[in-house]
Amino acid sequence: MLERIDLTKNLDKKESKELLDRLDSELASLQREAKACNIPVMIIFEGWGASGKGTLINRLIHPMDPRGFKVFTIQKENEEEAMRPFLWRFWTKTPAKGRIHVFDRSWYNRVLKDRIDGRVNKEQLMSAYNEIVSFEEQLSVDGTLIIKFFLHISKKEQKKRFEKLEASEETRWRVTGEDWKHNKQYDEYVGVYEDMLEKTDTAFAPWTIVEATHKDFAAAKIISTVVNALKAKIKNVKSPDSGQDDYEAYAPSPEFTTSVLDGVDLTKSFTKDEYKKKLNHLQKRLSVLHSELYRRRVPVVLAFEGWDAGGKGGAIKRLTAELDPRGYEVIPTASPNDIEKSHHYLWRFWNNMPKAGHIAIFDRTWYGRVMVERIEGFCTSAEWHRAYKEINQMEEHLYNAGAVVIKFWMHIDQDEQERRFKERMENPEKQWKITDEDWRNREKWPQYEEAVNEMIIRTSTSYAPWVIVEGNCKYYARVKVLETVVEALEERLK
Amino acid sequence: MLERIDLTKNLDKKESKELLDRLDSELASLQREAKACNIPVMIIFEGWGASGKGTLINRLIHPMDPRGFKVFTIQKENEEEAMRPFLWRFWTKTPAKGRIHVFDRSWYNRVLKDRIDGRVNKEQLMSAYNEIVSFEEQLSVDGTLIIKFFLHISKKEQKKRFEKLEASEETRWRVTGEDWKHNKQYDEYVGVYEDMLEKTDTAFAPWTIVEATHKDFAAAKIISTVVNALKAKIKNVKSPDSGQDDYEAYAPSPEFTTSVLDGVDLTKSFTKDEYKKKLNHLQKRLSVLHSELYRRRVPVVLAFEGWDAGGKGGAIKRLTAELDPRGYEVIPTASPNDIEKSHHYLWRFWNNMPKAGHIAIFDRTWYGRVMVERIEGFCTSAEWHRAYKEINQMEEHLYNAGAVVIKFWMHIDQDEQERRFKERMENPEKQWKITDEDWRNREKWPQYEEAVNEMIIRTSTSYAPWVIVEGNCKYYARVKVLETVVEALEERLK
Repeated sequence: MLERIDLTKNLDKKESKELLDRLDSELASLQREAKACNIPVMIIFEGWGASGKGTLINRLIHPMDPRGFKVFTIQKENEEEAMRPFLWRFWTKTPAKGRIHVFDRSWYNRVLKDRIDGRVNKEQLMSAYNEIVSFEEQLSVDGTLIIKFFLHISKKEQKKRFEKLEASEETRWRVTGEDWKHNKQYDEYVGVYEDMLEKTDTAFAPWTIVEATHKDFAAAKIISTVVNALKAKIKNVKSPDSGQDDYEAYAPSPEFTTSVLDGVDLTKSFTKDEYKKKLNHLQKRLSVLHSELYRRRVPVVLAFEGWDAGGKGGAIKRLTAELDPRGYEVIPTASPNDIEKSHHYLWRFWNNMPKAGHIAIFDRTWYGRVMVERIEGFCTSAEWHRAYKEINQMEEHLYNAGAVVIKFWMHIDQDEQERRFKERMENPEKQWKITDEDWRNREKWPQYEEAVNEMIIRTSTSYAPWVIVEGNCKYYARVKVLETVVEALEERLK
Repeated sequence: MLERIDLTKNLDKKESKELLDRLDSELASLQREAKACNIPVMIIFEGWGASGKGTLINRLIHPMDPRGFKVFTIQKENEEEAMRPFLWRFWTKTPAKGRIHVFDRSWYNRVLKDRIDGRVNKEQLMSAYNEIVSFEEQLSVDGTLIIKFFLHISKKEQKKRFEKLEASEETRWRVTGEDWKHNKQYDEYVGVYEDMLEKTDTAFAPWTIVEATHKDFAAAKIISTVVNALKAKIKNVKSPDSGQDDYEAYAPSPEFTTSVLDGVDLTKSFTKDEYKKKLNHLQKRLSVLHSELYRRRVPVVLAFEGWDAGGKGGAIKRLTAELDPRGYEVIPTASPNDIEKSHHYLWRFWNNMPKAGHIAIFDRTWYGRVMVERIEGFCTSAEWHRAYKEINQMEEHLYNAGAVVIKFWMHIDQDEQERRFKERMENPEKQWKITDEDWRNREKWPQYEEAVNEMIIRTSTSYAPWVIVEGNCKYYARVKVLETVVEALEERLK
């Protein structure tokens, strides 16, 4: 998921100057107000080497009254600390009411550096995650505002920065052999970071991913996030019955939404000939795998989401073309009926989960909770926010029971959608596929884009990954879907 | 902990008849109200074989309108069910809004029978606990009221019931070879049940232990619990901003409090000669173990709680008499000072956690949260309720870091306390030990008793057990404390 994030985000110079000036003065006054409200605040910085943690922390505290905050730079434990549970030194550093503690690296060392250095085994790693989550939950429920930043840069950008540091006499000492090793092992680290984000991204202490290629953008996103979180928390403390839920504290301003869609290359395509050849080959292969997974009793869950006219139906049709109909089922998801509405929103999907050895293909899914239900207000903010965790839990449960779970986002751009809508209007055989609602939904493209970006980031997991399918070319999209399924099944049946 | 529970609890015939009549009519009307409020309800019965689940379920549903509930008897999965995640058949059985589903055995089979039969490995067991907790949390946060009963009888009582069933032609078939095997392995099962209670006793779906020796008592406790829970839930649905927290829904009426203190045999004693001999031997042994744990870097946390004048000080004195003062510390806990008050209530205890190889002895502890702070209203109901989980998490964290954690409850009866208070008043050297506050606290004996019983049940864990010390005879108490510590350290250093 990290590789998918658009790291080119920037603000123009004038815009960012104005924004930062405004944010600075807001932050200064919010710091005073948070103190008056007795709110303890913890701000955590994690991220790649050379992603600019030091610089950005300095930028953050710049407008703040130094009597009210303290910065902790976390390095290897000293002897006293090493003789105690790993969270001990962080418990003792929790802020008193009204104080702000900023951490340059933190307790996450335990699941990052210690893990990579082989100083924690698998069981200790699982315990560490549990302990970290309970640490943050205990503080949060007691009133502490916890803001966590993950500073993200690309492998290339990191290399460039190391080289630049090395080029100067003054900064050469800052780049170590270990740093270069990390850069080489960047892809391995991606897995470790993603695991951390997946396991510790909670409602009470969610991660904010900061695109850190451009410093002004990163600074503005960080300060803006802190400002929003402080505002919401202060409001909540002042009027606890306002009905505002904590989640809102962490919503970024729209210009800072982390995007996994922006960077998608929609020019990818196949010619009809390429398509036919590949399709034929993949369909045959899938048919063989289908028998094999039936024999080995592996359940498979394939979830399709995407823009209207994004090509879900077409892809599903090609996917199932050569499959034995006794071994798969396509489950179309419409608005819930009355019986479904009288149950938990996941109930109807649980009802349709496949037997071992069978494939269930969902045409639209439980992700409606965090898309249409969120945008149309069919559920409360608290409900759709907590759905990320609930959905992850359900998918993990399926995985634990042996299932292969893959989620496809069929992605097209607005122009392509318009073209397809019009084509549907004009073609009598396809007219049934297009309604006024489709056109209305289209007007909400920006809201959907925001929701989809957040959804993919918060529910991309090792056990149930999202696959973004470049869908402007239908041929390409269908092949990619088939290819992904074939590869995943081959991996599973290995 | 289960062995400690007083299973002799009963009501007299007339009393229970009246009570049950009243409860029945309340339940009938609450069922209608819950339906009108659209509340889904799940009532789960787990417990020992022959503990009376069937009979008690029948008794519970007796006053209810049969159109509004359904009873599920859960046996081994059928073929369809076995091919899906183990919770699938329970997800599909979740009640619609306004309906009551009663389960005679449930998803807990997975961590009971399947575990005992060796059908889940260690990793699957941990996953199952996580999945059960998230299943219940998802339903609960969505509005489902979940009430869980564990029906508890002694090994002897179970044997008696099996024999009785076998004695009659008509019921003989009900007792199987497996039942007798279970009775023989009762003690092993205790561990499995305690593990289940420990891992799945949550704020949103806590366990109610039902002393099931006497049927009328058990019936009254069950129906009373359901009545209280429905009342609180209905109130909550009708006025969500009433400030009432969910926890209150599960508070049993005082006459039904599960007691671990009532059965404590306070006549246990040693003569002075026995005492001196044992003490001397144990102190020497402890001194040796102390060096050994220093060498092996094992941290030790000993927590002392108990009635005023229960003998904490005396026991701690004998415990430390022969220890190297560089290797242990006694931490007396008074009311929190201003700095402590400005932090999380566990902060000051974290600060004092021992280094590896050292012993920290806490004279009063973090359990103040669920005793004095609960009773005096120094924290909210939500705060002390969630403290059980927080405290368990802290102790588990210590354990994960290699610590031995033992908690002592120094138990005396009211007469003995009065005798000791008076002795302190009369003895000029001990007068400092007794204050007006002690006499005032004494008047709150029943509230403390309720709080202590609940505390011991909810925080007895495999990683940090409670040891109830029979304290009327100081000699006996001191020896038991020393003996317990010596045994635990020997076990740990083995």
